[in-house]
Formats: sequence, C-alpha cells, structure tokens
Amino acid sequence: MVVATFKLRKERKIRRLKIKVKVSIIGATGYTGAELVKILLRHPGVEITKITSQSFAGKKISEIYPSLRTSLTCEELNIDEISSSSSFVFTALPHKIAMGIVGSLYTRGKRIVDLSADFRLKDPLIYEKWYETRHKEKDLLKEAVYGLPELNRDKIKSARLVANPGCYSTGVILALAPLLKNNLIKEDDIIVDAKSGVSGAGRNLSLKTHFPEINENFYAYKVEGHRHIPEMEQELSILARKKVKITFIPHLVPVNRGILATCYALLKQPKICEDFRNIYKDFYKKEPFVEILNKGQFPEIKEVANSNRCRIGLMVDKEKRRLLIISALDNLVKGAAGQAVQNMNIMCGFDEKMGLEGE
Amino acid sequence: MVVATFKLRKERKIRRLKIKVKVSIIGATGYTGAELVKILLRHPGVEITKITSQSFAGKKISEIYPSLRTSLTCEELNIDEISSSSSFVFTALPHKIAMGIVGSLYTRGKRIVDLSADFRLKDPLIYEKWYETRHKEKDLLKEAVYGLPELNRDKIKSARLVANPGCYSTGVILALAPLLKNNLIKEDDIIVDAKSGVSGAGRNLSLKTHFPEINENFYAYKVEGHRHIPEMEQELSILARKKVKITFIPHLVPVNRGILATCYALLKQPKICEDFRNIYKDFYKKEPFVEILNKGQFPEIKEVANSNRCRIGLMVDKEKRRLLIISALDNLVKGAAGQAVQNMNIMCGFDEKMGLEGE
Amino acid sequence: MVVATFKLRKERKIRRLKIKVKVSIIGATGYTGAELVKILLRHPGVEITKITSQSFAGKKISEIYPSLRTSLTCEELNIDEISSSSSFVFTALPHKIAMGIVGSLYTRGKRIVDLSADFRLKDPLIYEKWYETRHKEKDLLKEAVYGLPELNRDKIKSARLVANPGCYSTGVILALAPLLKNNLIKEDDIIVDAKSGVSGAGRNLSLKTHFPEINENFYAYKVEGHRHIPEMEQELSILARKKVKITFIPHLVPVNRGILATCYALLKQPKICEDFRNIYKDFYKKEPFVEILNKGQFPEIKEVANSNRCRIGLMVDKEKRRLLIISALDNLVKGAAGQAVQNMNIMCGFDEKMGLEGE
Amino acid sequence: MVVATFKLRKERKIRRLKIKVKVSIIGATGYTGAELVKILLRHPGVEITKITSQSFAGKKISEIYPSLRTSLTCEELNIDEISSSSSFVFTALPHKIAMGIVGSLYTRGKRIVDLSADFRLKDPLIYEKWYETRHKEKDLLKEAVYGLPELNRDKIKSARLVANPGCYSTGVILALAPLLKNNLIKEDDIIVDAKSGVSGAGRNLSLKTHFPEINENFYAYKVEGHRHIPEMEQELSILARKKVKITFIPHLVPVNRGILATCYALLKQPKICEDFRNIYKDFYKKEPFVEILNKGQFPEIKEVANSNRCRIGLMVDKEKRRLLIISALDNLVKGAAGQAVQNMNIMCGFDEKMGLEGE
Repeated sequence: MVVATFKLRKERKIRRLKIKVKVSIIGATGYTGAELVKILLRHPGVEITKITSQSFAGKKISEIYPSLRTSLTCEELNIDEISSSSSFVFTALPHKIAMGIVGSLYTRGKRIVDLSADFRLKDPLIYEKWYETRHKEKDLLKEAVYGLPELNRDKIKSARLVANPGCYSTGVILALAPLLKNNLIKEDDIIVDAKSGVSGAGRNLSLKTHFPEINENFYAYKVEGHRHIPEMEQELSILARKKVKITFIPHLVPVNRGILATCYALLKQPKICEDFRNIYKDFYKKEPFVEILNKGQFPEIKEVANSNRCRIGLMVDKEKRRLLIISALDNLVKGAAGQAVQNMNIMCGFDEKMGLEGE
Repeated sequence: MVVATFKLRKERKIRRLKIKVKVSIIGATGYTGAELVKILLRHPGVEITKITSQSFAGKKISEIYPSLRTSLTCEELNIDEISSSSSFVFTALPHKIAMGIVGSLYTRGKRIVDLSADFRLKDPLIYEKWYETRHKEKDLLKEAVYGLPELNRDKIKSARLVANPGCYSTGVILALAPLLKNNLIKEDDIIVDAKSGVSGAGRNLSLKTHFPEINENFYAYKVEGHRHIPEMEQELSILARKKVKITFIPHLVPVNRGILATCYALLKQPKICEDFRNIYKDFYKKEPFVEILNKGQFPEIKEVANSNRCRIGLMVDKEKRRLLIISALDNLVKGAAGQAVQNMNIMCGFDEKMGLEGE
Repeated sequence: MVVATFKLRKERKIRRLKIKVKVSIIGATGYTGAELVKILLRHPGVEITKITSQSFAGKKISEIYPSLRTSLTCEELNIDEISSSSSFVFTALPHKIAMGIVGSLYTRGKRIVDLSADFRLKDPLIYEKWYETRHKEKDLLKEAVYGLPELNRDKIKSARLVANPGCYSTGVILALAPLLKNNLIKEDDIIVDAKSGVSGAGRNLSLKTHFPEINENFYAYKVEGHRHIPEMEQELSILARKKVKITFIPHLVPVNRGILATCYALLKQPKICEDFRNIYKDFYKKEPFVEILNKGQFPEIKEVANSNRCRIGLMVDKEKRRLLIISALDNLVKGAAGQAVQNMNIMCGFDEKMGLEGE
Repeated sequence: MVVATFKLRKERKIRRLKIKVKVSIIGATGYTGAELVKILLRHPGVEITKITSQSFAGKKISEIYPSLRTSLTCEELNIDEISSSSSFVFTALPHKIAMGIVGSLYTRGKRIVDLSADFRLKDPLIYEKWYETRHKEKDLLKEAVYGLPELNRDKIKSARLVANPGCYSTGVILALAPLLKNNLIKEDDIIVDAKSGVSGAGRNLSLKTHFPEINENFYAYKVEGHRHIPEMEQELSILARKKVKITFIPHLVPVNRGILATCYALLKQPKICEDFRNIYKDFYKKEPFVEILNKGQFPEIKEVANSNRCRIGLMVDKEKRRLLIISALDNLVKGAAGQAVQNMNIMCGFDEKMGLEGE
C-alpha cells in the first residue's frame, strides 16, 4: 500500500504539472473498447499509448472503426509492454478472460478499471454460481472497488482496481438507491422490467442479433436469470443494510444504444409524490451525471444516447402504495466506457466530467 | 328483438346457401380499417359492399394502400346507403365519433362490430371519466358484448353489437384470465409492463410518431393512466368475481407491429410451475388462436406479426411467490382487425378461423 | 423425354382428379426455404411431404419459425426418400452444394425448381468465373430453363428443371425487358443502382448483418462485381439479340425485405413518355404479377412486401434522352420463393396465381 | 465595404484577445438549428447569446431537446435585439421566410451564415422557377458566397453573407469536383443516385415521415426534380467552365442521419484507376474534412454519422469507361450545421476545425 500511496501522490503531482496520464486499453475493438478509445481520444488529460485486440492485431483501429480518427494500431496483448508504457489500464475483455490479466497488471503496480464482470461480486461463491467458473483471483476481489461513483466515490479515489459496473446494474442501482438507503420500500418486493439496445449484446455474432431476426422484433430474454442480478442485489443490499431481492426481466429493443429500466417498488408507508422527488434530488444533488426529472416527465433513451447521463423519472400511485421509477442511460457510455472514464477521472484527480461532456 | 332473431335465423340460412354476407367498413383508411379490408378481401364468406373514409372519399383504397388489390372506392359516410347495401358493419372510427354512428346502424337493424372504445365500458361514468365526454348511447351500452371470444364466445354468438377490445386489453386479459378465474393471484398486486409497436398510435400525425423522434428511441408513455386500464379491470373483475386493480405502464417500441405484455402477479399460495402451465393449457384448450408455450420458452412479437395468434409464456419464481406471464400479439390483428373478423365469424356462424389463417 | 412427357400428362390428369402434388423442400430452414414452406402450406394444390435441413434435422420447423403452423419435422437429406415420397422438389441450397443434389433428383425423374444459382448460367465458363468452382452438371445446364415466367413461360411449362432467378436479376430484367426487346435503348449504357433489404443476405451470420453494424447504416457492397450481373446480362442479351452490358451497384438497406432497382437507360431515339408506358403496359398486359404505374407514380418496397408482385414506375427525361425505370419487389417472394411457386404452378398446370394471392 | 473591412479587422483583433464571438441562432428548434446549438455549445470561440423559435418561444431548448445541456431559452424573433446582442447570426429558417430576415440582419451589419436555400442560386430567375416565389433580395444575391469551403474558401473568408449549401449538393459537389475541374468527364452524362436519412426532411410532420409509413420502407422521391439540382449544376458548371447537367434521383432511407451519393460519370478518355485516386487525393490534400478512400474501399453512412467528414470511394470500369464515385456525409453536420460552423470558423479566423472534432 505504501507503493500505491506513493504512486497516487506522484500521479497527482503529474496532474499539476500537466503531464498526461499514459493509458492502455486491452480489448479495444469490441463496442465497449471502441467507445473507450473514442472518449479517451478527446480527453485532455490522457495519452493512449497502447491498444490491444486479439482479432485485429496489426490493424489500425481506424480501419475497423473509421469514425475513430487516430493512427493507433491494435497490438497483441503483452503484459510487460503494456506495463512499461502506461500507468493506467482499462481492461475491456470478456469475463473469465479478464481476471488473470487484471491480476498480472495489478502485480505490476498498474491502476486498473476492469470493464468485465470478474471483480464485481465480492463473494467468489456467487461469482462461481453465476459465471460457472472458478475465480482465480480471490485475494484481489477484496481490493476491487465497485465503480459506481454515485455510491462509492471515496473508495474509488484511492482504489488501485475498480470493477466497472454492468450496464443494467448501473441503471437499476441509480434508480433504486435513494429509496433503499432511506428504508422506504419493501426490500423483497421490487420488480425491474428492463429494456436494452442491441449493442449491449456485444460485437460477437449470434442468431439473436442477426439483423432480420431482431429488427421489427421485441422479446424478453434471460428470463430465468440475468448475470447482473447478483451485482444489483449486492450493492443495494449494502445500501439498505438488509437483503434486497429483485425480480429482473430484461428485454431486447431493436435500437443500437440505450437502456430503460422501469422499476416498480412497494412503499413501506404511504408518502406523497413530491417527497420522493425531493429525496431523489437531495440524494443526487452533487452528481454531475444523474438528473431527476420533474413531475409528469419520464426519460427517453434518445435523450441520453452518446452521453454519460442517467435520467430518472418518478411517479407514485398512492392508492396502490406503488412507486414507479424509470431510469435511462446509454449502455455503452454511463453503462460502460463513460463510467469507466468517470472512474479514471476520480482515481487520477481529474475533474470528474473531463472528456465526458460535449455530446 | 324478434326482428333480430329473425335476421339471425335468416343469416344462418344464407350461410347454408353459400350466399356471401354483405359487409361494410366505416373508416377504412386508418391502419385498423385497412387491415380489416385486407383480411375481408380473402375471407370466402363475405363480400365488401361499401367502404367509407372521411379523408379519402372518392379515392380507390388501392391508391392509398397499393398492397390492397381491389377496386373498392372510399365513399362519404351515408348511413342509409350503408344500411341498404350491407347487413353487417365494422366501425373503425375514433372513439366519441363512433357512438352516434353505431347507434344509427343499430336502429336500422344492422349487426355491428365496433372497433372504437365507445361500447367497451359497461359503466357510462367510467367511460366519461376516461374519455372526458358524455356517452350518448347509454341504452346501447347494455346491449353491447365485449368481444373477446375466449371469454365471451356465447354472448358474441347472438350479439347484435360487439365492442371489439383494445389491443393492450386483449393481450393483458388473455395473459391473466386463467389465474384470476381460478382465484390464484392477489387481485390488487398485478403489474403489467407493456410494449407496443408504433402502428398502435394510428395513422394520425404527431411529433411522437415522426420517424426521427421514435426511431432509435424507447420510452414509457401515458404513465399516469392509459385508457385501456378500465377495460382490463372490468373484464378481469367479472372473471375474478372481485375488484381487480392493475398497475399498467405502456412503452413505445420502434417497430411497426406487435404488443408484448410482461405481467407480474403474486401468488396467493405457493404452487409449482407445471401446474400453472396446465391451468393455462386447460383454460385455452379449445382456443384456435391462443398458444401456451412450453417451459423455458417466451414469445417474440415477430412470431405473431400478421397473424391472429396470441402466444403466452410462463415462469414461476417459487422463492418470491411471483408469477411471470408474457403475452405477444399483433396489435392490428388479434389486437384489432383480426379479432373483429373472429367476432364476425362467431356472430355469423362461420368457422371461427375463416379468413384468419394462411399467414 | 418420353418418360417426361408421360409424367407430365399424368400430372395434369392428377390435377383434374384433384389429387394433390407431393412436394419436398430441400433446405427448408433458410429464409427462402421457410418462405417456401409458408406459401406452400396455404397452396391448395400441393402437399408437403418432406422438408430437410442440415442444421436442424430432427426439429419441427415450427420450433425454428413459430409463425409456421405445421407439424412438419426437418429431416436429414436422403435423396431416395425424397424421391419416393414426392414428385416435385424445391432445392433451396447454397450454390455449389445444389448442383449435385439437383443432378441426383433429375436422374430419379423428379421435376425440380432449384433456387440456387447453379443452373442459371448457360455457359459453364461464365459460371466458373463468377462462382470460382467447376460446374459438375454441365449436361443438365442445357435442360435447365431460366425461370422468369414473364419471359420464358412456355419453356417453363414443359421443363423438368427450372433455375429460379436471382432476386436482383428478377427486378432488373423485369424493369428493362420491354425496352431491350423493342430495341429502344443503348445496350451498353445501362446503369442499375439497386438496394436490397438484409434478408437477401440470408440467415448465415456475418459482421455485415450484425444488427448494430447495419442498423442506421447504408452502403454499397460488391461494387466490383455482384454475381447476379451475368444472369441479367445473359437473359437481357437473348431478348435484345445483342450483347447487353450493365453497370450494377447493389446497396444494403436496413430493412428486412424488399428490393428497389433504380435503372437508368439511354434512348436510341427520342420518344415521348406515354409511349414508353404503353410499351410496358402492352408487354406485361397478361402478367398477373407485374404492375406498370401511372405517370408521376413510383413504387415503394412496402407496397410489395410479402407479395409476389413487381411494381414498375417510369419517367423519361427528354432533354437528356434518359429513361428512368424503377422496379420494386419482395426479394423473398417474387425474388425467390414466390417466383419458385409461380414456376411450379406453370409446370404443374395450376392457376399461376394459386397460393400467391391473399396478402 | 469600409465598415465591413473595419469590422473584420476588429473581429480578428477580438480573436487575438480571446474574446468570444457573440452568435445568435434564428430558428433553433428544427433539426438543423438544434444541431447548430449542439456544436456551438462546445465551440470554445463563441458564446450563444440568443436563440429564437417561432413554435417554442418562451421554452428552454433543453425542454425540447433534453440532450442539449444549456439554460438557453427560445425567444420570439426580434431583429433589433438579435443585432444588438450578437455580431454573427445563423439563420436556420425555411426558404422564402429566410430572405427577408437575412436582408434586415445584413443591413444592420451582421455577418451571417444562412442555412436556407434563399441565397444559394445566383440567378434569381432560376430561384423563382424552382422555389415558385419572387426573390425579394436580389441585390444581396450578388453579395452571398456559396459556402462550400473546399471550393470557395477565400471568398468565404471575407464574406458577410454565406449561403450554406444543401445537404445533397455538398455530397454531390465534393464527389464530382475533381473530375469536372480537370475536364475528365462528360458534363452532360452524369447520374447521381442519392439516398438520405429521414432527418433530412426536417421536423415538420408529414405522412411520408410518419414512422409506420417509412420504417421498413424505401423509395425514390422528387423524381421529377429536386431543388438541390440547380445548386449542384451552378457550382459544378463554374468549376468545369461548361454547362454541367445532372440526372439526380434522391431516395429516402429509414435511418435518422446520413447521405450516400452514388455517382456515375463517363470518362472523356480512358485512364487507369489509381490516376483518379491521385487526382482526388491531390485536389483534397489540404482539406481537413474530406477523405479519399483506398482502392476497394467505399464509404458507409455510419462512418460519418455525427461528424463533419465527407468520405469518398472510387472505382473505374475501364471496359465501359465509367467512373463510380460514392460519397457519404451526415446531412445534419457536413450537410448543414457542421458546414455552417466551418464557414463561421473561416469567416472569423478560427481554426477551421474548431468545435468540429471530437466525435
């Protein structure tokens, strides 16, 4: 930890001296990796030194994503080269594959934001149940901070390893946190009906995401259990100081980007609507990326596309004691790459919004 | 009523003699009206004698919908001409406008399927609350049969006026009927998160349905109360012999056709899943247009597009005592024009599937 | 040929006796195969006896396409079983794979509509140039009739093997045939800018047809040479009795179905517009599936979706001596399965429209 | 002109002093206006002082476009207030309405980029033929510079009124300019088959842009003459020093943004392909926003979405002496608001890319 603290101090000094942080992106050619490249290219505080890609090593990333105007070339993954050329690393790899690589980078003293699921769940048994594989870096699990700035900002500041939350988890936790923190809703009677754009399924081919199959279509999937459930329940249970159970049903929408989470909660006690809105506004009053809408307003995914914002609408049905909370975010930005950069900003002492505005 | 009974007998005789039923469609150029024309053109038991359209009177309907291969020309609405040239009338008009016209046709002895909302609600006060207008045909409300064949087939058979259900109502009632009929779920703890394609909003222009506004978008609408709620609650309460209360949140999906209703109910007593499936299979065992899916299967809107079918998937979460029911249908077919023809088939003694297969 | 003539006579007798033709579909689970199943299920003159699928043998086709209401089960391909259980076979296989199977079926006396490209090109050298493989059934090439009914109806009647045209070829040939037949345009100055929906690329996965890649996108592809070019040039050259050369640039549109071919031709001599329209109307006057639009009207792909129709709009630019011809069809129907059934109807003596109306 | 020169000098001085240019946007709530607000909000050299909207006066623009994070409020148009609060004005109004307002602003000494069509055509008779209205500011027509920086950068620098080009015109002129400038193609044998996303039709409602009408559809429109034709012909004729005639057929693609122009030209003399590519690369070698693709590569609209870039692919068909040129751009950015800002950057002495990178 002495090393880490020293590094941290050094990094802050670098900040003052306006030296750019050298960052690498491992797994730069998936949708999340490419979004990271896009955001970091316009971030004034960093320099991208290396990007890796298993499938496209040797190719310029601008050949794969012509909208990315950079001469960066994808390389094979080489932990030593990454380590010597960068102090900060984003890992945007599939779960199971990420953990070993994160371990190696951590050992070499790098600060890391891992966008996989491998370090999100504190309990390795729960990880092993949901991901059907043994966790190879159990010790590191304790070091990892769940990277939702709105809940864990202080821990993120000094973290050496941040586990970037799942896209659905971000939307659902932000939607429910103020209620559970304030002990206002029944912890075991929460329903989340979530809808995601297709980029959430990644760039790997499957019949489900073949254009003629999903275009003009709509359906629920992973009805019997989506892997983001244990994440949400873990973080919300910490907040509620009680076991939170969520019924979570995701659906696929034929659009490229966006998640809408329609959440239904049951009040412990009757309350009037404006109360709730104030509780939310108060809870998020210093948050640059969370917006609580006014009465009668509900978010649309188009409003948050390509931005790091999460917009939340609220309504209470007094008669039924039911609260409706709808959150919207861009699954690739606040749900992945944007939040990863927000975490980096916090870790490196940058303005938290740096590189994340302007769209 | 003597006249009506006589007419009925005469109509059945006509059936035996293979004389075609003469039908008119009032309001043929909206999406529902055009779908009716499409289905009735291939229906072997009917002849379309007149179609009317306020906006397109004088034009051939094939000029407005070139996929409709017919020389039928839209006319101005003239109740007397409609009455003298047809024995059966479909009214596909906006609510409020429909009721007077239906009244006039009824007085002239026509049999009618009304696709508006004007005769769906038995209690005129509830109608007036939700539609913000006085009901001008209260006496006729008593005659009208709510045209969901799966619940009301016998009444439909002899009805002179059938109120064709709303598109959402059809999906929700079919999804919940077996449970409420069998007293299995809490009547006041039902949540329906529904999603509809854009044709459900009709052919009238609005910014919400302007292509660049809804394409690549997704959101909840009419969150504070959709007009199909009182319909569902009315019919399901009759079935449950208890007041049923539904939390209903509709969303707009950027596709042309289809409704998916994701329904969450709370069991009165724990039960195992296959039980439920059997209850559903039993409830719908004679229904030609309702399909109960097997374990682990859930419906997609693409599977029911352009068909009169409603597909239903089920799952029980034993731990939470929660039942998940997902229904899918085509809002213009089983949710409107197809169901209207199904009702006509029942009323006229045709095979119930006539004109509704083959897609 | 005696056998064939005898078979033909026998088949026509069967028709009179109202015995259904037994048909098999080889390759029933691709988009074209499934469309064939859909159309043939509602065709009153045939009975589907066998369907095969390499990927889904053993599964009901309704499990793969729930909108197909049939209990038909996909089988492994067994030429002998196909031959003994059916007299008519549709082969909907990838090119190269089709030719051998078609050969075996032909030897066993079956009548065949082959939907692959393997028997469309008369000259095996041209086939080998474009498909980069040796043609294994050169003798059979001479027997095969190019199955565009509007040009080759008489030959199709008595054909034992019909090569069903490519989707683009159908649209382009129908658009240009009246002009080339009548020697009105320069044969070497024809430009076709074509646009196709994504189902045209089939059900095989590729990054190009991965939803987030093609949704909200549009581009030209196979710019340096699409395999339908030699087909169009072959058939149009026969018609023109001169070598026809076409500049053909296809584009991908993010929709499921439909082809629009925008064709630009240069007149040999100035003519007025209504002349051309009459030439087209005359050329297609007996055609049930080709429609020539009136002045100022141009086709939309939505108008022909799910139908076997081809709609053609015309305009002449007198000043530039340029003629514009736009044709629209559904690539899976008139561009594939519908046309295949139209060919079968001609071959079997059915009404040519049988099974192809009603949508 | 003395006043103007003085102003110009003063403005450049302001630039050095890092004082921001005060700009107003008239017509800020159409798609083009909103895109202008989006770009200018992130432009470091300007301050938006006023935005106007006829339909939404009194409303914050963030209520209409929640993705725009600003407190700017739409006002009624008041020429005097605009003039006193800003030195630079963008007019994003419908043609016919723009000309009078532009005239008033010009009289008051403002520098203006007009995004309407009213000052694009030099010859008022041609304007009056295509726009069917008398031109009210004929004198000003002579002052207006056609704002395509790649052709007219020097004139734009000192212009007081820039007529921002049409979206199609930009794509077509950039695609054809190097050929016509170098006298390589026949001026009267050019065909442009263009395709545009739906935002190009603006935010006004029409049945053509009603979601269920254009979704899953594709067709040619304004076949008998699109108003961008005289613009393209005017600018390309100047460049070619000869009358250029273009056959231009636009199509509507069901996507939000993007134009693809597929251009077909006939060579005056045979040349090899790489020659052409070099001619293009040379012509655009200093252009920050035009990219010439390598052999075998052709642009996709997704690659330029949300950017000010125009990407151009080339191919020559030696046999037919035909050249194929495909250009892609975002109709709202390089085709409208982005190009308007590029023009402003040139007029005000900013770096031409300011505010136009980062996406």
